[in-house]
Amino acid sequence: MYFYKEDLINVIVPDRPDPAAAKVLQEALGGQFGEMRTMMQFSFQSANFRGKDKKYRDLIRGIFLEEISHVELVQTTINQLLNESGYPEAGDSGQDGAPLDDAIKHANPHHYIMGAQSSLPVDAGGNPWNGSWVYSHGNLIADLLNNLVLESTGVLQKSRIYEMSSNKTFRETLAFLIVRDNAHQNAFAKALETLGVDWGKLFPVPNYDINKYPECRKYVDLGYHNAQFNFRLDATTISEIFQGTSPSRNKGELQVVDPPAGFPVPELPIMPNEHSPGLGDMNA
Amino acid sequence: MYFYKEDLINVIVPDRPDPAAAKVLQEALGGQFGEMRTMMQFSFQSANFRGKDKKYRDLIRGIFLEEISHVELVQTTINQLLNESGYPEAGDSGQDGAPLDDAIKHANPHHYIMGAQSSLPVDAGGNPWNGSWVYSHGNLIADLLNNLVLESTGVLQKSRIYEMSSNKTFRETLAFLIVRDNAHQNAFAKALETLGVDWGKLFPVPNYDINKYPECRKYVDLGYHNAQFNFRLDATTISEIFQGTSPSRNKGELQVVDPPAGFPVPELPIMPNEHSPGLGDMNA
Amino acid sequence: MYFYKEDLINVIVPDRPDPAAAKVLQEALGGQFGEMRTMMQFSFQSANFRGKDKKYRDLIRGIFLEEISHVELVQTTINQLLNESGYPEAGDSGQDGAPLDDAIKHANPHHYIMGAQSSLPVDAGGNPWNGSWVYSHGNLIADLLNNLVLESTGVLQKSRIYEMSSNKTFRETLAFLIVRDNAHQNAFAKALETLGVDWGKLFPVPNYDINKYPECRKYVDLGYHNAQFNFRLDATTISEIFQGTSPSRNKGELQVVDPPAGFPVPELPIMPNEHSPGLGDMNA
Amino acid sequence: MYFYKEDLINVIVPDRPDPAAAKVLQEALGGQFGEMRTMMQFSFQSANFRGKDKKYRDLIRGIFLEEISHVELVQTTINQLLNESGYPEAGDSGQDGAPLDDAIKHANPHHYIMGAQSSLPVDAGGNPWNGSWVYSHGNLIADLLNNLVLESTGVLQKSRIYEMSSNKTFRETLAFLIVRDNAHQNAFAKALETLGVDWGKLFPVPNYDINKYPECRKYVDLGYHNAQFNFRLDATTISEIFQGTSPSRNKGELQVVDPPAGFPVPELPIMPNEHSPGLGDMNA
Amino acid sequence: MYFYKEDLINVIVPDRPDPAAAKVLQEALGGQFGEMRTMMQFSFQSANFRGKDKKYRDLIRGIFLEEISHVELVQTTINQLLNESGYPEAGDSGQDGAPLDDAIKHANPHHYIMGAQSSLPVDAGGNPWNGSWVYSHGNLIADLLNNLVLESTGVLQKSRIYEMSSNKTFRETLAFLIVRDNAHQNAFAKALETLGVDWGKLFPVPNYDINKYPECRKYVDLGYHNAQFNFRLDATTISEIFQGTSPSRNKGELQVVDPPAGFPVPELPIMPNEHSPGLGDMNA
Amino acid sequence: MYFYKEDLINVIVPDRPDPAAAKVLQEALGGQFGEMRTMMQFSFQSANFRGKDKKYRDLIRGIFLEEISHVELVQTTINQLLNESGYPEAGDSGQDGAPLDDAIKHANPHHYIMGAQSSLPVDAGGNPWNGSWVYSHGNLIADLLNNLVLESTGVLQKSRIYEMSSNKTFRETLAFLIVRDNAHQNAFAKALETLGVDWGKLFPVPNYDINKYPECRKYVDLGYHNAQFNFRLDATTISEIFQGTSPSRNKGELQVVDPPAGFPVPELPIMPNEHSPGLGDMNA
Repeated sequence: MYFYKEDLINVIVPDRPDPAAAKVLQEALGGQFGEMRTMMQFSFQSANFRGKDKKYRDLIRGIFLEEISHVELVQTTINQLLNESGYPEAGDSGQDGAPLDDAIKHANPHHYIMGAQSSLPVDAGGNPWNGSWVYSHGNLIADLLNNLVLESTGVLQKSRIYEMSSNKTFRETLAFLIVRDNAHQNAFAKALETLGVDWGKLFPVPNYDINKYPECRKYVDLGYHNAQFNFRLDATTISEIFQGTSPSRNKGELQVVDPPAGFPVPELPIMPNEHSPGLGDMNA
Repeated sequence: MYFYKEDLINVIVPDRPDPAAAKVLQEALGGQFGEMRTMMQFSFQSANFRGKDKKYRDLIRGIFLEEISHVELVQTTINQLLNESGYPEAGDSGQDGAPLDDAIKHANPHHYIMGAQSSLPVDAGGNPWNGSWVYSHGNLIADLLNNLVLESTGVLQKSRIYEMSSNKTFRETLAFLIVRDNAHQNAFAKALETLGVDWGKLFPVPNYDINKYPECRKYVDLGYHNAQFNFRLDATTISEIFQGTSPSRNKGELQVVDPPAGFPVPELPIMPNEHSPGLGDMNA
Repeated sequence: MYFYKEDLINVIVPDRPDPAAAKVLQEALGGQFGEMRTMMQFSFQSANFRGKDKKYRDLIRGIFLEEISHVELVQTTINQLLNESGYPEAGDSGQDGAPLDDAIKHANPHHYIMGAQSSLPVDAGGNPWNGSWVYSHGNLIADLLNNLVLESTGVLQKSRIYEMSSNKTFRETLAFLIVRDNAHQNAFAKALETLGVDWGKLFPVPNYDINKYPECRKYVDLGYHNAQFNFRLDATTISEIFQGTSPSRNKGELQVVDPPAGFPVPELPIMPNEHSPGLGDMNA
Repeated sequence: MYFYKEDLINVIVPDRPDPAAAKVLQEALGGQFGEMRTMMQFSFQSANFRGKDKKYRDLIRGIFLEEISHVELVQTTINQLLNESGYPEAGDSGQDGAPLDDAIKHANPHHYIMGAQSSLPVDAGGNPWNGSWVYSHGNLIADLLNNLVLESTGVLQKSRIYEMSSNKTFRETLAFLIVRDNAHQNAFAKALETLGVDWGKLFPVPNYDINKYPECRKYVDLGYHNAQFNFRLDATTISEIFQGTSPSRNKGELQVVDPPAGFPVPELPIMPNEHSPGLGDMNA
Repeated sequence: MYFYKEDLINVIVPDRPDPAAAKVLQEALGGQFGEMRTMMQFSFQSANFRGKDKKYRDLIRGIFLEEISHVELVQTTINQLLNESGYPEAGDSGQDGAPLDDAIKHANPHHYIMGAQSSLPVDAGGNPWNGSWVYSHGNLIADLLNNLVLESTGVLQKSRIYEMSSNKTFRETLAFLIVRDNAHQNAFAKALETLGVDWGKLFPVPNYDINKYPECRKYVDLGYHNAQFNFRLDATTISEIFQGTSPSRNKGELQVVDPPAGFPVPELPIMPNEHSPGLGDMNA
Repeated sequence: MYFYKEDLINVIVPDRPDPAAAKVLQEALGGQFGEMRTMMQFSFQSANFRGKDKKYRDLIRGIFLEEISHVELVQTTINQLLNESGYPEAGDSGQDGAPLDDAIKHANPHHYIMGAQSSLPVDAGGNPWNGSWVYSHGNLIADLLNNLVLESTGVLQKSRIYEMSSNKTFRETLAFLIVRDNAHQNAFAKALETLGVDWGKLFPVPNYDINKYPECRKYVDLGYHNAQFNFRLDATTISEIFQGTSPSRNKGELQVVDPPAGFPVPELPIMPNEHSPGLGDMNA
């Protein structure tokens, strides 16, 4: 069973609204290599696990638990980027010029139509998330290799998305996720090491100096690229795998640690023009 | 952030393998009105919530938390139904007759191809789960009405699926979910009552005597149709809405309660013929 | 604007329930070459028509109007095939054996889950109807050629589906539609003749003796393969195209005629076990 | 059977071409809550209706009939917005600069590729219309609640789309549809009132002053928000439900009335550069 | 079996990067009437061919072989249009302003996220290529008519896409493909002539003066509109059909000829900022 | 450019018709890990390759070339399995009993509706092939890892499908493809070895004794699990990678060799009842 404490796993840094950034950041939420995919893939792999060697299941489930928080973090970041992006003045609607004309120019129009300027289960191209992207091959080696490709491509894509806006809200969340994807890449690579592979200098994929992203540096200093957060309320055997030297060329020691302290969930203001929340008379 | 204790929210009752039942039960997992949809819909609605009236968000998020456990329950039930459904004798493969010929006759063939006889993110027709089924309208009344239709249709469909097999593994999980969908229907109907609606005798949808399902009776006796489980590790305001008389014609008092004690996750045996888990030499 | 009289365009012949036939007949409703496609394709082509040569638009729209009635005819036929296909005795549910276990063996399970044993906007494989199957090229010749392929394939597929069950409900509707698809094939071929083509003996596609289908014979005797029904309440110029010798090797004279007299819509009984219609206390 | 008179259900107000407006208006045609969905949903619900209480079927079918005209109205509006949006001078193609370079910047490129600058069965994001959006639950209460959410979300989305352009062609059609969606919301809410619900002040959803949209005012003055048009050529029992006080907080008396007088279908000019209509030598 | 020589079927003319052109050119690769569709449609039709009259299969397979080269040509053209479209200076990433901010404004964002600025199996709207677009009706006449519509619409769409940019890389490839689609249109029309049709002046569709596209003229001078390239290493009977007078109003003699001499495949430079190719230490 | 010789890459072994086997074998053609996916994935990766290190591109393209032949082999095998599966006696149609009633019971109904009992671009569940399954990450390591998962899962799935029928036509093709997928797995694993990985005993995935499949044994004896066929008409550098000791625990020496001698394409008989080929008068 799953329990919750109302804390985000990372901070939302305030900056200007940026609907074009919100559009491309959807890839990290509802894209083929986004957080909804990782969450559901690890959910299915841990539920479908066969056999007694539970340290592998504990590892996969442990990362699954973190991905639920990642989904919430990216949803919240997109909401922050969309917040106050249209309707420059409340009550101005329908007078001279169209209040959303400008906002939607480089935006995903569904951000402004389907909901009240908030996140959607779609990718950067507006395609809805699809269950056929989830793989649970039932063969542990195939699953671990697939997860490795998933986390590697996660970093790869986020490092490209990062270059699409210098917005601080946008880049801070991407930087945190890049570092965490590195940790998860290490976790799956390490699990394969227990089966006999010597990776040499293959990882991380992509090959890059993580410190060239200024926002990443503090998370590296915190050791987040070599840490696995433990969200279990009971015992777990993750550390039978996630320990010792990192399989990445960046080296370091792998460690299972407590989750971050938690960050406040920003409150989104009501939008009468968007009819949100729409509590009838209460909304006067 | 999300935490976990390795317990199922309800018991898995053992019975014979039943791949045809596993096929149709997928609707309750990956169908348009299945648990993946409820989980993701309430995830988006709670993350996208606007305004200060947080009791509504707490209610939606509270149900979201339970749905994560429902996803795990249905995945596990499907796995139990598929378990030992093919390969009557290990090592028999490829001799006389094809070991899976019979198993797949009324099965979803992907249950035997994509994974090692285990659950998939698809519906009863084999269509993959789709993000376009998730609605977060950004208008609280529209969201609550949509959730009401979602939970009502959830009961309706499960009461039809229930008639497709008398397998006990299958019916026990459906019965538990039918009662819980009733509770959630009550929750969203009650939230709309706080906005001024008097439902008369409309609910529950469908109109039926829940006690005619023998497996439902014990959950009704436990009061599960009028209870909301609390999975929060911090405070919640659900009970500002979820309290007082049930909006359903079945009446009773609504109450926020502790989650069930938890039930063990069955261990799935390895399947060497399915190459699962496939740990290389360890799998000899 | 569109007007309606509660009459079916053809008779529903009673016969036994046949869920396997209902499943494959969905192709004629929600398949790529089914009636929903023809209806929407001709709707878009007539609304998007350019230029003053309105006889072509009148022709396309005239066939569109008939297709709306075809959609209703196939929906009703599927409903008739599903009617009384499960729950052999009302009130028997959940006792010994599962009432729907048998019904769904060769059925589309969604016929029993999504609705109360009734038609769906899907094809014979259960895939939902898709807007990308609708073509409005904006070039009249390309549109007419596309429509010719559409109607030809319509006949072709229906003549194959016809062989899948000897159920009379099923075959009567297919036979009527085969003859009408022939008429529409003639209409589009004739329109292309006005642009200079001489078809020789190419049509109809497929090449077959329509009289080998006993159910088709009476519609051929009525001249339905060479007739275009007129559903316009104002004037139309269809007969500037739809006149003279048929372009088909079966020959005959093309004629615009009044629609059939109309046939009663069968009343579907309520199904308390399926919670349908579910009128609350009225449903006791 | 369905009959037709070549009249639009509302006027097309001329204004400048606006491809960006055409793109977002597609949501009202081929989106999840657009007119193709309402048309097909009510078509399936009326064909699949069970039982003798035909006033509910007459109500659903009555609205279905109007939706066919709405589809045609939105198709025609999109065509008007695209008309003359590219190729500023005929014959100018391919000389200096690309004639469509500018037009497609904020347009749906398929408007210029798939057809001759005209409407498509897709939503504002370019996703094709999908049959899985159509719900016919087979339980009347679930169907009516679903229809209520559908019409409410219809208004909600159109009131957001309205803010995306001040183009008069665009806003007039949206305003007419907003008022009609209100009427249909009232119809389904009223039908639920006959089953015992007292809505209080819940409706309309969203909660708004319809008169703040100047284009809506005249339709409200005509009483269109409380009227149901009758497109039946035979008798109907709609008025057994659609009568008495409106369930909306805006009050008024519900009335079944004759359809509007009808408005001319604009003629779209040929586009030789787009090869439309492409009548061979006739197109010289 | 299939053999390869590393040559493009046409030249890649260099010009400036143009991501907006790359976006719309995707239609010619992964669109419903693009080269992936023609390739797969003719692959299925030739493999599924029934009967002894192999000249028709040879014709279809012969065009299939050319389409494999067309896929490669369009992939390469898109890559050329995207090349150097972002990151104006390598090493500049993340300093002042976002290096891709501008590039993605009118681009398909997936061109910059999914891969290293290169081609994708999607259409101009970003929708993935779909197998349901491939038709192999099993009836030769229906197949030939469908292929005729496919090739005609191929020309039609490319002649519209041509107007979207004056980029030379873009227009040269489109012009070559327009001429080749004409040849294939002639091939299928001629095959239908062997079955008795007299086309009159119907073809080509669209009706246009191919010489108004300056880039087309040289291919017409080479006779490419009336030629079928022969990629068979063994004997073929294509010329039993593809011979004699062209069925097009443009006339000329049809001829089976050797393929073009072949053009070099441009080398794409590595992009360290895009982590491409990403050869670890070799990529320093 | 691509050239062709009318030879299959492997033999089609005759056996009884088996529509249920044809249905599941579609996974190997149009499934997520089927031959259409491998063909298109390697096509995109080779066209999109960046940099001068062409041995990697030659390797990927070399496998792409073989996959085109695999597509043809699986299409042909499915056709053989469907051949004569319905219409036991020609001319028997429509008399007593329905000729296809039995054939479609465990079949994909589209095999009998869409075409004349022949292969389709869909998977074992009937879902159409989808372009979003093709990955060209633009990072060579990610691409090679992805290809490894693709080929490993290819073997895994085929070894499961193999158990679904003992039909010889079916199993021979699967056995050949299983051995070839092993060779391609070796190729991509070897390419990663050139980047520094030591695989230990990880491969092949799945871990199995290939000789337990009797049909595989002869291909292993021919050395096909360690061979790469060369389909280039010009020079290739594949052997710079594909050489030396196999990375698989099965060991052996890797070698680039000539393709197999080639096997005849079976001729499919005409089916007048299916209107195939449908050559009009010629079809009498």
